[in-house]
Amino acid sequence: MKRIVLLRHGESLWNRENRFTGWTDVDLTPRGIEEALRAGDQLRSEGFRIGKAHVSLLRRAVRTLDCVLDRLDRMWIPVEKSWRLNEKHYGVLQGLDKGETAARYGEEQVRLWRRSYDTPPAPLPEDDPRNPRFDPRYADVPDGELPRTESLAQTVRRVLPYWQCVVLPDLRRYDDLLVVAHGNSLRGVVKHLKGISDEAIAELNLPTAVPYVFEFDEGLRLVRDYFLGDPALIRRLMRQVADQGRSR
Amino acid sequence: MKRIVLLRHGESLWNRENRFTGWTDVDLTPRGIEEALRAGDQLRSEGFRIGKAHVSLLRRAVRTLDCVLDRLDRMWIPVEKSWRLNEKHYGVLQGLDKGETAARYGEEQVRLWRRSYDTPPAPLPEDDPRNPRFDPRYADVPDGELPRTESLAQTVRRVLPYWQCVVLPDLRRYDDLLVVAHGNSLRGVVKHLKGISDEAIAELNLPTAVPYVFEFDEGLRLVRDYFLGDPALIRRLMRQVADQGRSR
Repeated sequence: MKRIVLLRHGESLWNRENRFTGWTDVDLTPRGIEEALRAGDQLRSEGFRIGKAHVSLLRRAVRTLDCVLDRLDRMWIPVEKSWRLNEKHYGVLQGLDKGETAARYGEEQVRLWRRSYDTPPAPLPEDDPRNPRFDPRYADVPDGELPRTESLAQTVRRVLPYWQCVVLPDLRRYDDLLVVAHGNSLRGVVKHLKGISDEAIAELNLPTAVPYVFEFDEGLRLVRDYFLGDPALIRRLMRQVADQGRSR
Repeated sequence: MKRIVLLRHGESLWNRENRFTGWTDVDLTPRGIEEALRAGDQLRSEGFRIGKAHVSLLRRAVRTLDCVLDRLDRMWIPVEKSWRLNEKHYGVLQGLDKGETAARYGEEQVRLWRRSYDTPPAPLPEDDPRNPRFDPRYADVPDGELPRTESLAQTVRRVLPYWQCVVLPDLRRYDDLLVVAHGNSLRGVVKHLKGISDEAIAELNLPTAVPYVFEFDEGLRLVRDYFLGDPALIRRLMRQVADQGRSR
């Protein structure tokens, strides 16, 4: 049996402040670190022997991974980092409060920006200091591939090549893989793996730092998927994520 | 100009207890973490833009690297891990107190084991649970390459191929590299880079978490080397390392 564990990073500073984060490089909160360590403990007690990990270029994901590998006693495994696992780019919304944005633009518009499949927020201007073209971590990415905003459809289109060409082939070498990334980049992966429709994916909300396990057979066909942990608790956490776009 | 920064990990639990560590996977002390964070601050204030890092498979080195990358705001750079950067294997001495060992075997014998170029301690028995062949992190290393003890000469012979075939070629792509490893594996690298004799290398003692910078020209010839920080403080730290093999 082959397994890939998807893990959304722990609570970040802007999760706590309920702000659109996207590619903004905010850190975990102390609670987010606790969540990440707990995820590591869960994976360890469930017998996962992660052979390699993949992670985005954002520090909330890398720090989550570091915490998990610490608790797994696997700080020595290879780790591959890619901008393709980054969160969906939120364009000009990055930094805005989700509740205020809902009060200003209406809950329906915010729901569209957060959850519609193909409506991107307005793009960052070319000279905006937040534009990824100014960030040295993306210096190797061709400018034509660097987003200024993204719909979930666009996020999926840049995540999937990495999934197909880098992550999945690693399953031939390793039985258990770990992918630490973000709410929307991981929703894109789940959509692909489970064949979820463009409409239905809006209803999938991934809680922070809850290991989401995908099992594959030797032909790398998906056999089953499940969250690690108490189902009632996980449902409550998913509900909280869905409610973040409401005005307060 | 091209630069490689060598960094010995911060103080570990067994540095503090003055025990032979070798491949034993002990963690940093709180003071070791402080040292590592300070090294990151130094590199940042001196303008190092580390493009890639190399590190051993031991957690005291990986955690040191994680602290440095945090302070450099470069948690996103690629990191490559190799057993070839591990500390010298100390054979049956691993776990013994350096002072007690000196009292039992004599200071001269301990000095030989610690600093002579080609005298290895007695090897670990094949069925000793500390034998690296039982550790999953070395599962990919051919058994014939896995040490049960090492002299510094043997450590050099397994470090240098990695240095020559993996680290140095990375200088073509990146201007600044970071290598986080151990007192003896790094002494081996320094011996090679500076052409230090088998005898004189005994006098080189690397302090924990002090960045040691090597500058190369475009032909990758060594131009100069220097430690970052206050020279008087660094001399005092080097003296402390040399004194660890004395009986108490």
